[in-house]
Amino acid sequence: MNIDINSDLGEGFGPYTIANDAELMRHISSANVACGYHAGDPVIMDRTIRLAKEHGVDLGAHVSFPDLMGFGRRKIDMALPELEAHILYQLGALHGLARRADHKITHMNPHGALGNLASSDPDVALSVASATMAFDPDIAFLVLPGSALEKAALDLGGQVVRLFLADRGYLPNGQLAPRSQAGAVIHDPALVAERVLSVLKTAQVTTVTGEVIPMPVQSILIHSDTAGAVGLATRLRHDITTAGGAITPLSQQKQPHT
Amino acid sequence: MNIDINSDLGEGFGPYTIANDAELMRHISSANVACGYHAGDPVIMDRTIRLAKEHGVDLGAHVSFPDLMGFGRRKIDMALPELEAHILYQLGALHGLARRADHKITHMNPHGALGNLASSDPDVALSVASATMAFDPDIAFLVLPGSALEKAALDLGGQVVRLFLADRGYLPNGQLAPRSQAGAVIHDPALVAERVLSVLKTAQVTTVTGEVIPMPVQSILIHSDTAGAVGLATRLRHDITTAGGAITPLSQQKQPHT
Amino acid sequence: MNIDINSDLGEGFGPYTIANDAELMRHISSANVACGYHAGDPVIMDRTIRLAKEHGVDLGAHVSFPDLMGFGRRKIDMALPELEAHILYQLGALHGLARRADHKITHMNPHGALGNLASSDPDVALSVASATMAFDPDIAFLVLPGSALEKAALDLGGQVVRLFLADRGYLPNGQLAPRSQAGAVIHDPALVAERVLSVLKTAQVTTVTGEVIPMPVQSILIHSDTAGAVGLATRLRHDITTAGGAITPLSQQKQPHT
Amino acid sequence: MNIDINSDLGEGFGPYTIANDAELMRHISSANVACGYHAGDPVIMDRTIRLAKEHGVDLGAHVSFPDLMGFGRRKIDMALPELEAHILYQLGALHGLARRADHKITHMNPHGALGNLASSDPDVALSVASATMAFDPDIAFLVLPGSALEKAALDLGGQVVRLFLADRGYLPNGQLAPRSQAGAVIHDPALVAERVLSVLKTAQVTTVTGEVIPMPVQSILIHSDTAGAVGLATRLRHDITTAGGAITPLSQQKQPHT
Repeated sequence: MNIDINSDLGEGFGPYTIANDAELMRHISSANVACGYHAGDPVIMDRTIRLAKEHGVDLGAHVSFPDLMGFGRRKIDMALPELEAHILYQLGALHGLARRADHKITHMNPHGALGNLASSDPDVALSVASATMAFDPDIAFLVLPGSALEKAALDLGGQVVRLFLADRGYLPNGQLAPRSQAGAVIHDPALVAERVLSVLKTAQVTTVTGEVIPMPVQSILIHSDTAGAVGLATRLRHDITTAGGAITPLSQQKQPHT
Repeated sequence: MNIDINSDLGEGFGPYTIANDAELMRHISSANVACGYHAGDPVIMDRTIRLAKEHGVDLGAHVSFPDLMGFGRRKIDMALPELEAHILYQLGALHGLARRADHKITHMNPHGALGNLASSDPDVALSVASATMAFDPDIAFLVLPGSALEKAALDLGGQVVRLFLADRGYLPNGQLAPRSQAGAVIHDPALVAERVLSVLKTAQVTTVTGEVIPMPVQSILIHSDTAGAVGLATRLRHDITTAGGAITPLSQQKQPHT
Repeated sequence: MNIDINSDLGEGFGPYTIANDAELMRHISSANVACGYHAGDPVIMDRTIRLAKEHGVDLGAHVSFPDLMGFGRRKIDMALPELEAHILYQLGALHGLARRADHKITHMNPHGALGNLASSDPDVALSVASATMAFDPDIAFLVLPGSALEKAALDLGGQVVRLFLADRGYLPNGQLAPRSQAGAVIHDPALVAERVLSVLKTAQVTTVTGEVIPMPVQSILIHSDTAGAVGLATRLRHDITTAGGAITPLSQQKQPHT
Repeated sequence: MNIDINSDLGEGFGPYTIANDAELMRHISSANVACGYHAGDPVIMDRTIRLAKEHGVDLGAHVSFPDLMGFGRRKIDMALPELEAHILYQLGALHGLARRADHKITHMNPHGALGNLASSDPDVALSVASATMAFDPDIAFLVLPGSALEKAALDLGGQVVRLFLADRGYLPNGQLAPRSQAGAVIHDPALVAERVLSVLKTAQVTTVTGEVIPMPVQSILIHSDTAGAVGLATRLRHDITTAGGAITPLSQQKQPHT
């Protein structure tokens, strides 16, 4: 009954902010921090890392294609060796700031268009996993169950933490229901909390079409940029602990290959 | 009679190149690699780091203001905490790529407008030195003798390597003669080599106005972007070893505070 | 009793927004649109231009140093010919999008650090003015009374529109009171509106130390990024029209040199 | 027997240069100038425009995806309305600098990955053509015969200038032979010049497999970044004029839809 609550933070740039990072940091147990490619700049990264350290929140590298204007949502065609160099650059940059703050990178996950590719394209997944493990083999991969990145990480002897998207409906094959489908997005916080508790207790979830499928996850994602993010985080923390569970940082949830 | 030969490499960007890095790398013993701020991108940084590793060349971080278009030559007004975050970002990014290549950062020096400020402004020097030492206290500072950065680094308990600009004339106060002054730039490679040997043997140099002043240096800079850079590096290496000296990487030349 | 109400709009970037541009556009009569240098990107510029056209709002170019991360608030040392090329680039880019929307640039003003320099440094002011007039001599300069840019524009035969900062206190010499001084910023919307009406009727303002000085302005600035911006714009429009005045676009307020 | 000689110029960035623009400008009759997206910055654009004006060389906008690091060679997934805004931004920016130099944009062509898409994808071609014609319907499109952009431009009532790649082999269907195929690239300048003259006289070319196909072109491209670019330009100019032909700027070659 241990679970990590995870969120994407540090997604501002220069004068801009998106989420209420300071407030969210009080309720989550791990954060994925933008590394200056889709969002974030050194000042924002530094502030976010310090906040995470202060609240005992695990630090993740949220890597992306180099695309500030497109918020990393646009696929950029690049050769895999080039992609690997970009990933190492981002991991290192975050590490540089983390070291001064006496914090460390526990995990990583790719953002946006790169995240989609790493979930579906085995070659991209392998590049992401191998670059990361060349940097630090102790960094876990925050993955969707069944994704290409999960497989690549485990194939290389890496560790994964599997993520549940609490406000999204699932298909019978374990993938997210497309947003166009009924039940694809769950807006009621009470229902979201109920689903999380159910997943926690049973390691199963009911799909949009009513099947019960395995959902062996160790982390729950809260979208930092939605209106009720802080409220949802507060509620999840309350409901989980009330039910006898515990919010535990992701680094205590790593699942090795076997 | 040991000395390091140092050069600024990896100063291309995307499709562009400036110096003949591959050839120069065969003759020098330490390189300062651009970190994507005044030049360099992850692909070029990766290639340059691998070349350095392959040739036993020490790896330095050549940090800068964020100014690709201006090649880091324009001063950007920024608060010192912001500058420190930018330095940590660059050190980390280079470290990220170096780690995969099994190489390591031995030294750093600021480039262009930031280099000028760090030489003359004690506050900027302190920010550069403290950010670097928070990242890794074993990183040495490649400095001009008498500069603010030399003082800041030593005050913080850091290590320095003092640099001789072989093709530049010096003033009696130990500073570089302004380019407008006669003798400020020495173009004859034979004369440059002769000066280097003299400095090596005596730890002194003759100024543009004829005085003999102390020049206790451990490294010689070769400008990578000048026409005869490779020829000069070849000649220096030959003349120094013929005279019984040795070209030794900068990491074996670190001067601690005492 | 005619006056322009002016605001800085289009200051988002990629996924980010700052002000409620769509709402503000309903109340103002001229907008200064960021050109991609301190904020703005082609998509945001296009949207802002179309909104302005739709509401009969005059279009201005809000030019800046190239500094997205610093929101144009950091001075970048660059040679004046280089600055002029950057200004022409921005004016042209905005014009490119405006032409498709059948709108046109009526005015310009420099933003942030460039704005401060253009107000105080005659050489920078001359570069800004001459580059702009080389692009289109009909573009008016939105200036602070007594600024270097006002003088440079008039010296070159250009037209100016003088700006009143309704929520700021003034010194006896006509300059803005520094923010550290009592009365430097006026937070009460009623007081701001009262001051505007008084300036409209008398062309004078009372300084922070009680003197009455001339304030011959044709435009009032509303800061788009402050909380009550829309409310203040609504109130100003109401109070001015109630008092028998009219909100008139800046292009009808141009003051030629005489 | 009139033909335009065309080249891509202004492809430097900040301290970097690629081609010998000043020398090439003496031999060509039209130039496509990078607009800051794949290469070029305002200073380089300004210098290139002035050079073109001075030599009576027609000015084209060489537009691209926003990708300096990738030199515009990487496809960036973006929505068509976003692409159109980027094209208008670039056209406008070039126009801004051209206006001061009393020069004007006569033509445009998309570069790199955008160029490939505009040649093959009718939707992208339509976006490129309609954005350009909304800016200025007198701007001609420099196209490959049979390309999607040629069709889109003519469908919208625009003007085209058809381009012959003098050093490339053609397939029977009029497309370029892939570089992997024998005869795909012609390295001998004498042979290149001979082909150009033959095309000029007959409006036909012999394909890599020996067929003779129509090649109704008005402009010849010289790759500015290849070693012998200046030599080839000189030779072409000489051979064409010796044969009784004339090098005529592209603006005198526009082919309207009929």
